[in-house]
Amino acid sequence: MAKTNFEPRNPDYAELIRDSHDNTGFGKTLGANITVIEPGYVEMELPFRQELSQHHGFFQGGVIGALADYVGGYATYTLIEENDSILTVEYKINMMAPGAGEMLIGKGTVLRAGRRVTIARMDVYALQTDGSEIHVAAAQGTFMRMENKPDVAATIAKIQKNKTQ
Amino acid sequence: MAKTNFEPRNPDYAELIRDSHDNTGFGKTLGANITVIEPGYVEMELPFRQELSQHHGFFQGGVIGALADYVGGYATYTLIEENDSILTVEYKINMMAPGAGEMLIGKGTVLRAGRRVTIARMDVYALQTDGSEIHVAAAQGTFMRMENKPDVAATIAKIQKNKTQ
Amino acid sequence: MAKTNFEPRNPDYAELIRDSHDNTGFGKTLGANITVIEPGYVEMELPFRQELSQHHGFFQGGVIGALADYVGGYATYTLIEENDSILTVEYKINMMAPGAGEMLIGKGTVLRAGRRVTIARMDVYALQTDGSEIHVAAAQGTFMRMENKPDVAATIAKIQKNKTQ
Amino acid sequence: MAKTNFEPRNPDYAELIRDSHDNTGFGKTLGANITVIEPGYVEMELPFRQELSQHHGFFQGGVIGALADYVGGYATYTLIEENDSILTVEYKINMMAPGAGEMLIGKGTVLRAGRRVTIARMDVYALQTDGSEIHVAAAQGTFMRMENKPDVAATIAKIQKNKTQ
Repeated sequence: MAKTNFEPRNPDYAELIRDSHDNTGFGKTLGANITVIEPGYVEMELPFRQELSQHHGFFQGGVIGALADYVGGYATYTLIEENDSILTVEYKINMMAPGAGEMLIGKGTVLRAGRRVTIARMDVYALQTDGSEIHVAAAQGTFMRMENKPDVAATIAKIQKNKTQ
Repeated sequence: MAKTNFEPRNPDYAELIRDSHDNTGFGKTLGANITVIEPGYVEMELPFRQELSQHHGFFQGGVIGALADYVGGYATYTLIEENDSILTVEYKINMMAPGAGEMLIGKGTVLRAGRRVTIARMDVYALQTDGSEIHVAAAQGTFMRMENKPDVAATIAKIQKNKTQ
Repeated sequence: MAKTNFEPRNPDYAELIRDSHDNTGFGKTLGANITVIEPGYVEMELPFRQELSQHHGFFQGGVIGALADYVGGYATYTLIEENDSILTVEYKINMMAPGAGEMLIGKGTVLRAGRRVTIARMDVYALQTDGSEIHVAAAQGTFMRMENKPDVAATIAKIQKNKTQ
Repeated sequence: MAKTNFEPRNPDYAELIRDSHDNTGFGKTLGANITVIEPGYVEMELPFRQELSQHHGFFQGGVIGALADYVGGYATYTLIEENDSILTVEYKINMMAPGAGEMLIGKGTVLRAGRRVTIARMDVYALQTDGSEIHVAAAQGTFMRMENKPDVAATIAKIQKNKTQ
C-alpha cells in the first residue's frame, strides 16, 4: 500500500533519484543505499562502519542528520518535474536515542508538496540484531523546488549512460 | 577579546575537547580541525575534498549540518565539569547559500548554559579564494549535560597518553 | 483505540491538565478547549474569533504556534509524576496552509518520553464547513520534566476546589 | 548605527508595516507595539498583562513565540517590494528563561534576504525593573516573499486613510 496519496509529475522520478545519488561524492562517503522510492516517500539504509562512529562507538549524530536530510530531499524529488531540482531550505532534528545498531534506516515522508515549498518529516531508526527498529531521530524539514534547474549529478549520470549504450 | 562571558568549570576543557575529537571515527572521516577553543565558543575548519561534495561539486548539506552540530556541542563542552559529557538533544539549521569554497569554517557560540540544558547558535561560513567568508548556514541547537558520565573518546585518549609517557 | 502505548505514572493526569489549563491567563485569552486526553496524546479545539485573526482574516500564525505548544506540553504532562511540571525547551513549526476555517484542532503526540526530556510531534488542522480537516501546521518540540516542582496553576485549582467542597 | 547593511526596495516600508500591524486582529489582542523599523531589523515591545500569562504568572510561551514570529516577519517586510507580502514558512524557538518582567522586547534581524526566501534570527528579552534585559528566547525562521500579493491589512489601512483625508 502506498505511504502517501501524492501523484508524481515526472514518471521517471525513481531513475532520476538513483542517478543523482550515484553521482554524489558524500553519498558514496556515507555509503547509504536507497531501498524504497514511492511518490512522496523514500527509504534509505546505511550499514554501520567504524568511520561513521562517534565517541561511544555508535553512529555519529552528523551521520544521522545527513541521512535525515537525504530522505527528506529525495522524498521531495519524487514529486517534482523532470527539469527541476531540489534545495534543502532547512531542517530540524531531535536525537531521541543513541545510534546503536547494525544499520540506520531513514524514512522520508512528504507532508505537503507546494508549488515552490515542500514540507517533509524524516525519521531515522537503528536496526537491532533481533530485527526490531529503535526510533533514534525525528526530523522535519523544508525543501525548495528549483524550477528548470536540472539536477547536475543526475544529468551527468544520464550522459554517461548514453555514452556506454 | 573573549567572544562570551562564561566561566569554565573545568580548567582542562580544551584538552578534553581535543582528546575527544581525536578519538571519534566520523571526526576523522570528515577531517575537520578545531582551531579556536574559548569558554562558550569553538571554531572548526574543514577543507574541501571531493568525498564531502554533493551534486554540484560543493560541500554536501549533511557535511555542513555535521560541522554545525560539532561546534555547538564542543562550545557546550567548554562549560561542563571534568566528569560530564554532552548529548545533542536537537538542532535546526537553515542552509542559506551553496557550500562553495576552499574550506568551511564552523563557529559555535553558547547563548545560555543551564545546569542541564545549554542553548547554542552555530554558523557555518565558506572561505573564498579572496579571503572573504560567505555565511552558508545558520543553526541553533539544544545540548544536554550528562552528569558524571565522562566522555568515552576523551577517556580512551587519556589512558593512551598515560601509557606512552 | 489508544494513540500511543505509553503508561501514565500519575493516574490523575487528566484532572491535573484540566486544572492547569483552567488557571492559565493566556489559555483563557486564546479560548482553546481540551477535548481528548490520553496517555501521550492530547487534542484541543479553538473556535475562530476576530481577535485571533491576522491580515487576511484567518487565524494568526502566533495563535497556531501557541496551540501547537499547548498540545505538545499537555501530551507530555500525561506521562509525568504527580508533583512534576513541564517546561517547553523548544519547538519548531512549519506553517503549511492558511489557518482558514471555523475552528483549529491541535493534536499533540509524544514520540519519546525520557526521564528528563520528552519529544513530541504536534499537528494543527483547520476544520472546514464540510467537516474535513486541512493540515495547516506541523511542529516538533522538546519538553523538560521539572522534578518535584508541582504545576502552580493546577495547585491553585486544587486548593480552590477543596475550599468549595 | 544601522543593525544591518541591507538596502530596502520599497522606500515606504515602515508605513506599510505599521499599517499592516494596526489592522491585524491578533496584533491588537496581544497589544505589542513596533518601536524600531530599520532595513532588515525590527523591534517590538509588549507590556505585561494578566491575559498574557501562563501558570506561574509570567508571559506564556505562546505569547513569546508569537512575538518572535512578528519581529521576524516584519524584519523581512522591510526588504520586499511595494506590492509583495510575506508568509511565515517556519520558525524554531528555544525558551531560555522564564518570561518574567514588566515587558517583552522582541528583536528581529534578517540574516539573508533571497529573492524568494528570507532567513531571520529573532530574540526575545524580558525587561527587568532595574532596566536590564534577560534573554528569554532565541529563534530562527524562514519567511517567503509573495510576489505581487499586496498585504491585505495594509491595503485596507491605506484605503481608510485616503477616505479620511
